[in-house]
Amino acid sequence: MAEKVVKVGLVGFGTVGAGVAKIILEQADAIAAKSGVRLELGCVVDLDTTTERPVKLPDGLLTDDFDKLLNDKSISIGIELVGGTGVAKDMQLKMLESGKDVVTANKALLAKHGNELYKAAAKNGKCIAFEASCAGGIPIVSAIRTGLAANNIEAMFGIVNGTCNYILSNMTTKGQEFADALKKAQELGFAEADPTLDINGGDSAHKLAILGSIAFGYEIQLDDIYVEGIEGISKDDIQYGGEMGYVLKLLAIGQREPSGKISLRVHPSFIADDISLARVNGSFNAISIFGDAVGEVLYYGRGAGMMPTASAVVADIIEVGLGNSATTFRNLKLRPREEAEKVIESIDNLVSRFYIRMMAKDESGVFAQISKVLADNDISISGMLQHEGSGPGNTVPVVITTHPNKESNVSVAVESLNKLDTVCSEPVCIRIVDIPEDKD
Amino acid sequence: MAEKVVKVGLVGFGTVGAGVAKIILEQADAIAAKSGVRLELGCVVDLDTTTERPVKLPDGLLTDDFDKLLNDKSISIGIELVGGTGVAKDMQLKMLESGKDVVTANKALLAKHGNELYKAAAKNGKCIAFEASCAGGIPIVSAIRTGLAANNIEAMFGIVNGTCNYILSNMTTKGQEFADALKKAQELGFAEADPTLDINGGDSAHKLAILGSIAFGYEIQLDDIYVEGIEGISKDDIQYGGEMGYVLKLLAIGQREPSGKISLRVHPSFIADDISLARVNGSFNAISIFGDAVGEVLYYGRGAGMMPTASAVVADIIEVGLGNSATTFRNLKLRPREEAEKVIESIDNLVSRFYIRMMAKDESGVFAQISKVLADNDISISGMLQHEGSGPGNTVPVVITTHPNKESNVSVAVESLNKLDTVCSEPVCIRIVDIPEDKD
Repeated sequence: MAEKVVKVGLVGFGTVGAGVAKIILEQADAIAAKSGVRLELGCVVDLDTTTERPVKLPDGLLTDDFDKLLNDKSISIGIELVGGTGVAKDMQLKMLESGKDVVTANKALLAKHGNELYKAAAKNGKCIAFEASCAGGIPIVSAIRTGLAANNIEAMFGIVNGTCNYILSNMTTKGQEFADALKKAQELGFAEADPTLDINGGDSAHKLAILGSIAFGYEIQLDDIYVEGIEGISKDDIQYGGEMGYVLKLLAIGQREPSGKISLRVHPSFIADDISLARVNGSFNAISIFGDAVGEVLYYGRGAGMMPTASAVVADIIEVGLGNSATTFRNLKLRPREEAEKVIESIDNLVSRFYIRMMAKDESGVFAQISKVLADNDISISGMLQHEGSGPGNTVPVVITTHPNKESNVSVAVESLNKLDTVCSEPVCIRIVDIPEDKD
Repeated sequence: MAEKVVKVGLVGFGTVGAGVAKIILEQADAIAAKSGVRLELGCVVDLDTTTERPVKLPDGLLTDDFDKLLNDKSISIGIELVGGTGVAKDMQLKMLESGKDVVTANKALLAKHGNELYKAAAKNGKCIAFEASCAGGIPIVSAIRTGLAANNIEAMFGIVNGTCNYILSNMTTKGQEFADALKKAQELGFAEADPTLDINGGDSAHKLAILGSIAFGYEIQLDDIYVEGIEGISKDDIQYGGEMGYVLKLLAIGQREPSGKISLRVHPSFIADDISLARVNGSFNAISIFGDAVGEVLYYGRGAGMMPTASAVVADIIEVGLGNSATTFRNLKLRPREEAEKVIESIDNLVSRFYIRMMAKDESGVFAQISKVLADNDISISGMLQHEGSGPGNTVPVVITTHPNKESNVSVAVESLNKLDTVCSEPVCIRIVDIPEDKD
């Protein structure tokens, strides 16, 4: 069968854009031999046409004129790597309207306006492919959409933000405080100058909105997702949790609850130290998915970076070029908002185990008071840890892990604990996530 | 868009067949809602039409007449779950000739006759989808074919036989001897009554032939693959290797060597105990793939069993139904045998590190003799371990790990070691596989 030539236009010539251009320019032969699709770069659009990039484009390819891409009828696929939710949205819409399929890595945009963009694509008979938007080089979108299509997804637990995982890994293995670990991550390029969206959990929530939509089949919105970041995490709690057999990770969780509802949440999570996710270190990403037929499947790899993300973008370009993405996209059936709203579970109703740590006065009767508050709220203690020796103001850290209890109930108890005279710091409360075991 | 109805015929109503029937009968609505494809079971063919199965078929569906499937023009996909390389091959060919696409989990058949079958499919304008043939529930075939399509695959390291991994895990964690671990695996259903093809590495080689073909893009044959099984492994070597920081796994390895050639091999492999693959225990499978753009991607999940394998079969049925498999299959470009033969590297030329253990006389001068043999063959010692205390006939186990050396060279040295008067047992020689590190 003859090769199919596919000409693409690229908007956004930053790190990932340069990676995509590099693969298309250098690997066109290898890709054509393997996939039957010959990729050609029609134009590259960026406002900055002068800065040196790590790939040399043929003359005349780089332009600051987006219309050049739009009006080139020979370009069938537009690759949006501009990022953000402003101009990028207009660009995607315009490319769809001008008859081009869209490939994007823009998770923020899809998380916020995905449902609108998907509809615009459908209206124009075009598709949007977004493998690169979640977990970089890990082909997780296609895994959920095709490889696991025979399954009802019961749960997914993802480490999907490399910056946070890098910071938490260093806090765990090197005993660094959050501020120091963040600074180190910035120095080494694992965190942005403004790391807000990573460390506050926002970026993970973007990815969960996208993955949750396709895994559970609903039009999920960003504000369906409960989000807590890692900014407030202390190395002490990582250490105490570690002593009790837990590792702290920022998890993006989508889970069908026993009630049948779906909970969607991003928060620091203590997980057992002997499971696979606990061993995902540094800037790596990993996602465990539980399907009713397949059991647990885990995917691990680089979640960001120039070439891993470019690898996912180009995989999408090939699938769009083959026509497979169009078929798969056409069949993306997301149940509408009114149905989604009925099934999304509020965080207040979540039943979870908890790690609670407070600095308490080092005197008699203190634990009796604390345990009475918990008992009064029907919260059963699972584990307990109190280190000897005095902390600031003659206090000691009292650490308690609970049996499963309702989130709203635990919140009330923690408020009561905070009011005790003998409790000298606001209690730290971290969810313990019991990932289902799929064992022999 | 309206649902597309796809009618399938199933041949082979064993464990996996029953799982496939169960998913199609019970999940048709959910699958249609998610994928746009409504699956219908047209007929189920098996010689045994009386044994009770774990799924109840509608009346009239089960038959022992394969022609009924062949002649039913409304059936567009034939699912071959008969297994083996005899009648199954005829059945696949007949289904292709009668205008049906084929979905199969038959790794032995594809490993032996895949190239012939692929050509027959192409000739008839049909496709063969075989996700379920490798690593059961892990969507590894589609990952290589599509998710990683932008990459040149540099290496893959797979634990792809659950029986062997179950046995080796128990030998490692429970100190069982091979025979005991095998017996236990058989009792619990993790090994067949005749486990030969699992423990001799043959099953892993079948999977490597299939995965290697698509990863490297050549018509690979089974005898391109060097194969050693785990039958000869002693718990002592697992223990000594463990003391030196290694875990023993049966790995299926496809690797582009520094020479540019490709080595394909299945053999017991010591791997560093702190890498992900070392922690894959029990009957689970995992595959690490290294792509030139993406770095390391690891996939983990159940490699066998009724529902995980059925999950992969049904995923393929959906992709065939959507038409995606046809496109992907049409573009399966395997360079022909004459090219493959030029690039497959012989095991003799492999450069590897080795673990060598021999029972040596517990007397002076022994280690000087052993180390002289190694030095004479230009083999450099990397690590050494000798436990105190006498073994049978006043012998002690001497364990040596080497720096990288050529396989043929090490074979010569091991022969010389075996001839030493002071070496009282044939030296045990196990390859140490240094899996490339993809770290921050």
